[in-house]
Amino acid sequence: MNLILLHDDDYIADTVAVLTGRRLRHVLDIHRARVGDTLRVGKLGGLIGEGRVRSLTTEMLELETHLDQQPPVPLPISLLLALPRPKMLKRVLQSVTSLGVKDIYLINSYRVEKSFWSSPLLQPEKLQEHLLLGLEQTCDTVLPRVHLKKRFKPFVEDELPRLVAGTSAFVAHPVAANVCPVGSSGPVTLAIGPEGGFIPFEVDKLQECGFLPVSLGKRILRVETAVPVLLSRLCPT
Amino acid sequence: MNLILLHDDDYIADTVAVLTGRRLRHVLDIHRARVGDTLRVGKLGGLIGEGRVRSLTTEMLELETHLDQQPPVPLPISLLLALPRPKMLKRVLQSVTSLGVKDIYLINSYRVEKSFWSSPLLQPEKLQEHLLLGLEQTCDTVLPRVHLKKRFKPFVEDELPRLVAGTSAFVAHPVAANVCPVGSSGPVTLAIGPEGGFIPFEVDKLQECGFLPVSLGKRILRVETAVPVLLSRLCPT
Repeated sequence: MNLILLHDDDYIADTVAVLTGRRLRHVLDIHRARVGDTLRVGKLGGLIGEGRVRSLTTEMLELETHLDQQPPVPLPISLLLALPRPKMLKRVLQSVTSLGVKDIYLINSYRVEKSFWSSPLLQPEKLQEHLLLGLEQTCDTVLPRVHLKKRFKPFVEDELPRLVAGTSAFVAHPVAANVCPVGSSGPVTLAIGPEGGFIPFEVDKLQECGFLPVSLGKRILRVETAVPVLLSRLCPT
Repeated sequence: MNLILLHDDDYIADTVAVLTGRRLRHVLDIHRARVGDTLRVGKLGGLIGEGRVRSLTTEMLELETHLDQQPPVPLPISLLLALPRPKMLKRVLQSVTSLGVKDIYLINSYRVEKSFWSSPLLQPEKLQEHLLLGLEQTCDTVLPRVHLKKRFKPFVEDELPRLVAGTSAFVAHPVAANVCPVGSSGPVTLAIGPEGGFIPFEVDKLQECGFLPVSLGKRILRVETAVPVLLSRLCPT
């Protein structure tokens, strides 16, 4: 937790916030803060700054906050990700959030196991837990939006054309002839398939929508490795 | 398992290998192979090619192998990594192996918990398990070398100068003024600290050894995200 995220209902006055629960325990156990110390804090959806510890017990922490810095610039890349297995999804959500992606489309694909769509992790409050961990890690305050798209074809035909308009769109495809470019000069839409990849029909549909299939060479990476590698490679230089 | 790795003692004749255990189960349960099918196989430390299923029971698999392709080119980046917690180390070893790193130095640092050094995971055969998973994922046959360096100062003073000679050396340091370059024209040595980063003394020692501190901007990434991001960013273009 490199940043303590404050919510509206933590505030008891204009600049005074009271914390309990997980964040309090973290401040006690990890920061080992004392009265008078300052901690890095941010308002969810808002500014970043400092919180001075006004009082601290095992029951609650009272912070006087002074917020004057903008959160870091978002990464101008929207991510379409074939829904990974829940355990991997948790890690990917955190890592993608920490990298500054603000729109995450979890989409279906032939090779996505149907059961993944009934995971309790996909409930909004569960998703948010992992997004918050990513924000706390990377010192950001702006939650990504997670969009669940359980049907591939209607999503790609009816919604995607509008989403990719004005962006450079790439689909990671290990057998593609084109090597993934380095750097980008404008917004990007990046699609990454499931373990085993998108099937040819899906790649075709994405191509019809303007996506260029790109590969990273001969190596085949797991989704959790491919995601940061591709985001890093495509981010503006 | 995108590649079935064969060891010397799997061979019962020049081109005939017999598999049991984990690899057999994978071929039965995931590939669902039958007699006559061909599977992608590689010889540990050697060539890659095809294995035709000659016989297959729940007890053993017999493959006729034909190996004629070189493994993928290694990534010309040596990695110095402050020993992460065991759970994260497993994942990082697999991901780093899949990206083609061939020399991994697990080093000590002030912020590495002492207990991490007594993890059973650091036994050679346990380390190798995770390296093999990385090779199987990425269709490579060449095991990385993992070097355990439990004492920071003697390693950096006595061994590191020789290791970095002829390479561009970078240490990831979130507060560094220089932004991490994109691409490299020759071999690279990359040092990544523990959660919380290297302490100033350690950064100084690395700088004396020729390392340039570089950052990725304002965001603070977890080690498992920072590693693929930095390797991707520094790899030759």
